[in-house]
Amino acid sequence: MSARRVRVAFAMKPDTRARVFGPEQVARFEEVADVRGFLTEYESDAARRVLSGVEVLVTGWGAPFVDGAVLDAAPHLRAILHSAGTVKPYLADDVLERGVRVSSAAGANAVPVAEYTAAMIVLANKKLLPIAARYKTLRQEFDVEQAFPGLGNFGKRVGIVGASKIGRKVVELLRAYALEVVVYDPFLSAADAAALGVEAVGLDELLATSDVVSLHAPSLPATRNLVDARGIGLMRVGATLVNTARGEIVDQDALTRRVVAGELFAILDVTTPWVLDTDHPLYSHDHALLTPHVAGSLGVELGRLADVVLDELRLLVDGRPLEHEIAADVMAITA
Amino acid sequence: MSARRVRVAFAMKPDTRARVFGPEQVARFEEVADVRGFLTEYESDAARRVLSGVEVLVTGWGAPFVDGAVLDAAPHLRAILHSAGTVKPYLADDVLERGVRVSSAAGANAVPVAEYTAAMIVLANKKLLPIAARYKTLRQEFDVEQAFPGLGNFGKRVGIVGASKIGRKVVELLRAYALEVVVYDPFLSAADAAALGVEAVGLDELLATSDVVSLHAPSLPATRNLVDARGIGLMRVGATLVNTARGEIVDQDALTRRVVAGELFAILDVTTPWVLDTDHPLYSHDHALLTPHVAGSLGVELGRLADVVLDELRLLVDGRPLEHEIAADVMAITA
Repeated sequence: MSARRVRVAFAMKPDTRARVFGPEQVARFEEVADVRGFLTEYESDAARRVLSGVEVLVTGWGAPFVDGAVLDAAPHLRAILHSAGTVKPYLADDVLERGVRVSSAAGANAVPVAEYTAAMIVLANKKLLPIAARYKTLRQEFDVEQAFPGLGNFGKRVGIVGASKIGRKVVELLRAYALEVVVYDPFLSAADAAALGVEAVGLDELLATSDVVSLHAPSLPATRNLVDARGIGLMRVGATLVNTARGEIVDQDALTRRVVAGELFAILDVTTPWVLDTDHPLYSHDHALLTPHVAGSLGVELGRLADVVLDELRLLVDGRPLEHEIAADVMAITA
Repeated sequence: MSARRVRVAFAMKPDTRARVFGPEQVARFEEVADVRGFLTEYESDAARRVLSGVEVLVTGWGAPFVDGAVLDAAPHLRAILHSAGTVKPYLADDVLERGVRVSSAAGANAVPVAEYTAAMIVLANKKLLPIAARYKTLRQEFDVEQAFPGLGNFGKRVGIVGASKIGRKVVELLRAYALEVVVYDPFLSAADAAALGVEAVGLDELLATSDVVSLHAPSLPATRNLVDARGIGLMRVGATLVNTARGEIVDQDALTRRVVAGELFAILDVTTPWVLDTDHPLYSHDHALLTPHVAGSLGVELGRLADVVLDELRLLVDGRPLEHEIAADVMAITA
């Protein structure tokens, strides 16, 4: 341990702080840091006093926005370590320009989403949830191969839309299976695709040939309605759409029509609106599974976020490169 | 290709043959083999004529039993390649002693079961199916962390009962996750456990400390009621039991009582009896998921079985060691 401990403040919503940085986590931070305070805003005199001394801000969901005035009030600030995914809603564009380093736990936050997705893809190819739903209704044996022709994972094709952190982790998890994985991403080079061990394809080809399509594109104006009614129409009968990204990426009405027609299956952690109307047909159709935005970090998964930020802090203290630092050019194309 | 092709007959139930060895698969066999016939019994004159010439029998689910008289009728028989899991119901004990080699596709058949299990373990730790069930009922957001305390996979413990082919494949698939895996198997040595990357523990310790318990023991007199009422009683509140092995291994009434009490979760591909009575509470409880014996090879997964047998046949023709040959000492302790 160095003689002088780095001066740190936490800045996020109180309930986020309590969930991600409990007493045990804070005690571990105090092994390397002088924890100066827990902020929920940057305007009060008390907050300004804390800011005037801190070298590192640990931010998270619901953190107050860091603008030029906040940077002026924190002349010693060297780094902002964000304990959640996307940092953009919390930082003015000039934070990086003014020499403050930014790191994000987006990689750690991607893990549970990718795990949810990979598990759902395996179940989807095997039609396990529709089979369970039918078994619950019939309560007797039935010919599952006749009811769900071609079920199983062996040799199936999975289409990943978006080579994001999450999309790439899904690809990694699926390497253990006898699946063919194709990826659509306008920023994915052929060399990058080869390094990932996947084939890069166009979106139409992906939709038309995949047994499961999983969405991992960022929510940007350019990705709104990316899988539109025409794209939904390209999907094969019996295919499944998995969405853990944002409801706005897909034409939900077109998807719903094909699910209700018995042609497609849907596993959705996100919808438009955020919670569907109570009479929406996707709630009760055996070909659909809805989960309420739980693919990301919740429960014990939050411990991974605290671990990642603490690891980053230790690297910073030791003068070593950060593991998850965000460069200016990456920040520009991140959601 | 060798000048003289090896003489092969298929012997299994007609529907098994049609599902596993379709015209495309048979055509690929004919590249290396002289396919002499498709048998469903070994007694008729026609069957005896085929047997008198064959060197290899490809067997499968519902194959007729091979006893000494069948071996007498097949003097050129060198190998039995079984296209399914367990071979014991189909072979007399003296087949190996009489110099006929036996190979099984149990390893290939283990793959879909292990894939089902690993996916269900990930979902179970995250309580995704009970969350989906509750969301379907409420149709509004709710505090999932309060409803399902400690949900998530990060750092959770998974207990695998039985280091069988399937149990080992589950362990392999779980290596990509931040899970601690412990295994109970009376035949697993400490060195073997270390090679697998798991800790070997006693059954009571496994049941008392695991967040998910998954059963992969063979169905033998010694494993009947292996997880008895006392064992079920040891399981932690909030834990999940996954059973893809045999219903008889677990005290189902004790399990049901704790599920109905809201203390445990259950994901069962097998039950006792094979199909539960229509009023059984596990059908409708949100903490339980029943699937009708579909974890194994079905649909496109059957293609993997045909591939494995064809690979074995090629090794045999080339005089190389078989990949999945069963030695006499292993046969003795196999289900």
